[in-house]
Amino acid sequence: MAKSKYEYVKSYETDDKILQNCWIIVRIDGKAFHKFTDAHNFDKPNDIRGLNLMNFAAACVMKEFNEIVLSYGQSDEYSFVFHRSANVYNRRASKMMSNVNSLFTSSYVFYWNNWFGEQKLKYPPCFDARIVLYPSDQNLKDYLSWRQADVHINNLYNTCFWNLVLNKGLTNSQAEERLRGTVSSDKNEILFTEFDINYNNLPAIFRKGTILLTKQIKIDEENRTRKMVIPIYDDLIREKFWKEHDELLEKKS
Amino acid sequence: MAKSKYEYVKSYETDDKILQNCWIIVRIDGKAFHKFTDAHNFDKPNDIRGLNLMNFAAACVMKEFNEIVLSYGQSDEYSFVFHRSANVYNRRASKMMSNVNSLFTSSYVFYWNNWFGEQKLKYPPCFDARIVLYPSDQNLKDYLSWRQADVHINNLYNTCFWNLVLNKGLTNSQAEERLRGTVSSDKNEILFTEFDINYNNLPAIFRKGTILLTKQIKIDEENRTRKMVIPIYDDLIREKFWKEHDELLEKKS
Amino acid sequence: MAKSKYEYVKSYETDDKILQNCWIIVRIDGKAFHKFTDAHNFDKPNDIRGLNLMNFAAACVMKEFNEIVLSYGQSDEYSFVFHRSANVYNRRASKMMSNVNSLFTSSYVFYWNNWFGEQKLKYPPCFDARIVLYPSDQNLKDYLSWRQADVHINNLYNTCFWNLVLNKGLTNSQAEERLRGTVSSDKNEILFTEFDINYNNLPAIFRKGTILLTKQIKIDEENRTRKMVIPIYDDLIREKFWKEHDELLEKKS
Amino acid sequence: MAKSKYEYVKSYETDDKILQNCWIIVRIDGKAFHKFTDAHNFDKPNDIRGLNLMNFAAACVMKEFNEIVLSYGQSDEYSFVFHRSANVYNRRASKMMSNVNSLFTSSYVFYWNNWFGEQKLKYPPCFDARIVLYPSDQNLKDYLSWRQADVHINNLYNTCFWNLVLNKGLTNSQAEERLRGTVSSDKNEILFTEFDINYNNLPAIFRKGTILLTKQIKIDEENRTRKMVIPIYDDLIREKFWKEHDELLEKKS
Repeated sequence: MAKSKYEYVKSYETDDKILQNCWIIVRIDGKAFHKFTDAHNFDKPNDIRGLNLMNFAAACVMKEFNEIVLSYGQSDEYSFVFHRSANVYNRRASKMMSNVNSLFTSSYVFYWNNWFGEQKLKYPPCFDARIVLYPSDQNLKDYLSWRQADVHINNLYNTCFWNLVLNKGLTNSQAEERLRGTVSSDKNEILFTEFDINYNNLPAIFRKGTILLTKQIKIDEENRTRKMVIPIYDDLIREKFWKEHDELLEKKS
Repeated sequence: MAKSKYEYVKSYETDDKILQNCWIIVRIDGKAFHKFTDAHNFDKPNDIRGLNLMNFAAACVMKEFNEIVLSYGQSDEYSFVFHRSANVYNRRASKMMSNVNSLFTSSYVFYWNNWFGEQKLKYPPCFDARIVLYPSDQNLKDYLSWRQADVHINNLYNTCFWNLVLNKGLTNSQAEERLRGTVSSDKNEILFTEFDINYNNLPAIFRKGTILLTKQIKIDEENRTRKMVIPIYDDLIREKFWKEHDELLEKKS
Repeated sequence: MAKSKYEYVKSYETDDKILQNCWIIVRIDGKAFHKFTDAHNFDKPNDIRGLNLMNFAAACVMKEFNEIVLSYGQSDEYSFVFHRSANVYNRRASKMMSNVNSLFTSSYVFYWNNWFGEQKLKYPPCFDARIVLYPSDQNLKDYLSWRQADVHINNLYNTCFWNLVLNKGLTNSQAEERLRGTVSSDKNEILFTEFDINYNNLPAIFRKGTILLTKQIKIDEENRTRKMVIPIYDDLIREKFWKEHDELLEKKS
Repeated sequence: MAKSKYEYVKSYETDDKILQNCWIIVRIDGKAFHKFTDAHNFDKPNDIRGLNLMNFAAACVMKEFNEIVLSYGQSDEYSFVFHRSANVYNRRASKMMSNVNSLFTSSYVFYWNNWFGEQKLKYPPCFDARIVLYPSDQNLKDYLSWRQADVHINNLYNTCFWNLVLNKGLTNSQAEERLRGTVSSDKNEILFTEFDINYNNLPAIFRKGTILLTKQIKIDEENRTRKMVIPIYDDLIREKFWKEHDELLEKKS
C-alpha cells in the first residue's frame, strides 16, 4: 500500500498557467439546448425565465470571483471577463475554467425553481466551457461586440421566424423559406407590417443580451453602499458604454 | 452591426487537441467540501449517502461518454478514464474536461434528494477539474493505484480520528495528537482494542473507493443483456483486477 | 538602472516541459535546400558528400546528447530519437529542440570542407526543427517506417527522373510526363531496360537512408571497447532490425 | 512499402500557433560560452571581434525576416523582436524559433573569419533559443530594459574584475573578494582611482549592448535609399529612444 511507489504519476500533470497581462474570457455554452428548451417548453423566440436564470447563475459566479469585471450573456451562453491582472488560482487555466463552469451549472440547477416555479427540471443540463485570451483592450471590446452583434442577428431572425410560425401558422420550413435572403431592413419590415411589431421597442434584454457589472450601490439614506451585481441591457458596441464604465479597463497594480 | 468586423476575434481561440494514444484522465474534485459536508451534516468519517450520490453522478457521466472505460471515486473526487483511442470532441481538452465536469456537477445537484431525502441542499456545490495524460498502461494502473492507496491511508486515519472524537470524547486536537506518528498497524490496533473494530471488515466502499465499469448484464431468462454501469469495490492495485477485466486495456482499432 | 523594476518580465516565460514517458523526436529539415543544392552543384539524384556531411553533423549531435538512442537521416532531413526516459534539460521542449538544431547546423557549416574539399560553401544554410511525441514503441517504429518508406518512394522516382534527364536528354517536364502514373514496378523496369540499372543494387545509403546508432566497438586486440556512433543502412521497417538492436526499446530506470 | 500505413504518425504533430497580437521575442543564448571564449582567447572583459560577429549574424537574421522590428544583443545572447502583427510561418512557434536560431548559428560559423581573421574556429559553437510573448508595448519596453540593465550591471562588474586581474595581478578569487558587496558607485570609483578609467567613456557597445534597426538609408546624392540594418548603441531604457524611433511600436494593419 506504499503510496510513494505510485506518487510519480503526479508529476505527469502539466502547468497550464495563462500568459500574464491578457484579458481572460471563460465562455460557457449550453450543450444541446435546442433539445433542452423544447423539453422544458421555453417560450419562443425568448424565454424570460430562462434568461433570468442564466443571469442569476452568472451573478453567483461573479460574486465568487471578484476579478471578473464584466460578464455578458445571451441565449444559452455566457462570457466571463477576468481582468488582465487577475491572479486567482495563480492563473491556472483548468482551475479557472472548471470552477466557473461548475459553479454556473450548479447554480443553474439549484435555482431553477426560483424562475420556473412548479415546472420541474426534467434532467440535468450541461454546459461546456473554453478559455480565450485577448492581449489588448481593443481585442476585448471587439470580442464583446462580436457576441452582441450575434445577438442582434439571431434575435431579429428568430423574432421573425417565430412570429411567422406561431402567429401566421407557417411551418418551420415555410418560415425559413420566407426569410431566406432577407436583410435586416426586410425583417424589420415584416415585423412591422405583418405583426405590428416595432423591433426596437422589444425588450432590450432580448435585443442586446445582458451585461453584468459589479457596482457599489447605495442601500440606504445614510449613503451606505453595498457591492452588487447589476444587469445592464446596453449597447456595448458603442464607445459611450466604455466611457460610462471607464473603471472596467483601468489598470490595476 | 456588421458582425464580420469583429469576427477576427474567433481566431484567437487555440487548438488544445490532446496527444493521441495516451490515456486521458479527467479528475474532478469538490471545492471546499470540508465546509460543504459540515453544512450538510455528513456522517463522519464516511457518509454513505454522499458516496452514493457521487457514484450516481459519475454513472450519469459514463452513460453519456461511452469512451470512458473506467471511473474511480473516493471522498469528494472522481477520476474518469477515457480510452487511449478516445475521439470524442476530436480530443479537444477543454471540451472533454468541461462537459464531464458540468454534467457531473449538474447530476450531483439534480439527484441530491434521491439520496438525501428531505434534507435540503443548502447552496450550489462546485467541482474543479483537470486533465492528466498517461502514455502507457502501466502509468494508468499506477495512477489508479495512487488514488486507491490514498483512500486507504486517509480512511484508516479518519476512521481512527472520528472514533476517538465521537466515541471517546476526544477533542479534534487531542485525536490528532494521539495519532501523530502512528503507522498502519498502530491504527489497526487502536481500532481493534479500543473500539472492537476490525478495519478489514468495514464496508469495502469506505476502504477501497468505488470503481465504475460498463458491463453487459443479463436482464432476463432469455439471456438478453443490457449495458449497465456497475460499481465494484475491489482492489485494483493487484494484478488480479486487471486480469479479471482484461477488456479495459484492450487495443481498440 | 534598477534591474528589479523590469525583472517581472522573466515571469512571462512559460513552462514547456514535455509529457513524460513519451518518445521524443526532434526532426530537423533543410530550408530551401533545392536552391542550396543547386547553388552547390550537388550530384543528382544523390550527392554522397552531402549525405556524409549530414551524417557527420548528426553524429556530433548524438555525441553531445547521450539520451538519443537512434537517429535517422535522408535527403536534407534528420530525426533524432530521445529515449522515452530522457531527462536532459528537464525535458524542456525549446531547450532540447534548439540545442539539437543549432549544434547540427553549426557542425554542418564547420565540417563542410571535410566533405566538399576545395568547393566553398557559398552562404550559410538553415534548418528548421520540430518536436513530435510518440507514446508507444509501435508509434515510434511506425514513425521511422514512415520516414524510410518516404526515402524509397522519393529515391526511386528521383533515380528515374535524373537518369531520364541526364542520360537520355529529356527536359525536366518531359521526364515528369514520362513518370506520371507509373508505379514502383514500372520505374524498376525503366531503370533496368533503359539504363541497365538494377535498383536494388544501388548503394543502400541512397535506398534506405542512414540509421545512426551508438555502439560499444572493440578497438584493439585486448578487447577494449569505445562508444562510437556508427551508420547503418538497414531496413528498419522489418521487425528483424528491432530484434537485432533490442536494446533500443529497452526500459531504462 | 506502403507509406499510407504509417502516415497516421503525422497526425501526432501539434499545432503551436502563437497567440495573436502579442510581441514575440526569440532569444538565443550561447551554450557554454565561458569555455568557448576561453578556447578562442577572447579579450576580457569584452571582445570587439566577438561582438561584431554576433551583430553581423543577427543582421543576417533580420534581413531574412522582415517582421523583426528590432534586435538587441549583448555578450553571447541576442533577442529578436517580431512585430505583434507578424505572420511568418503562420506564427508557428517551432518554425519561427528554429529558423531564427539556425540561421544565426550558421551565420556565426560562416562569417567567423571575417572578424577573427587567421584565428581558426576550433569547434562548432551552439546556441539555444526560447520564445517569450509580451501582450503590451510597455511589457516589450520593460523586457528590453531588463536586458539592457543586465548589460550595465555585468559589464561594470566585469570591467572592474578584469582590470584587477589583468592590470593589478590579482587572482580571480582575490578580485571577487575585492568586489564583494560593492555598489555601482564603488566600482566606478575603483575604475577611476586605480585604473584612471572613466566608465562612462568606455565604448557604448560595451556599456549599452547593440540595438539593430532596419532603416531606409540614403545611398547617393539623388536621394535614393536602401533598406539597411544599422547598429545603434543607445539607451533604450529612456523614453527618448522610443520617441526617436516611434515607427517601432506603430500599429500595422
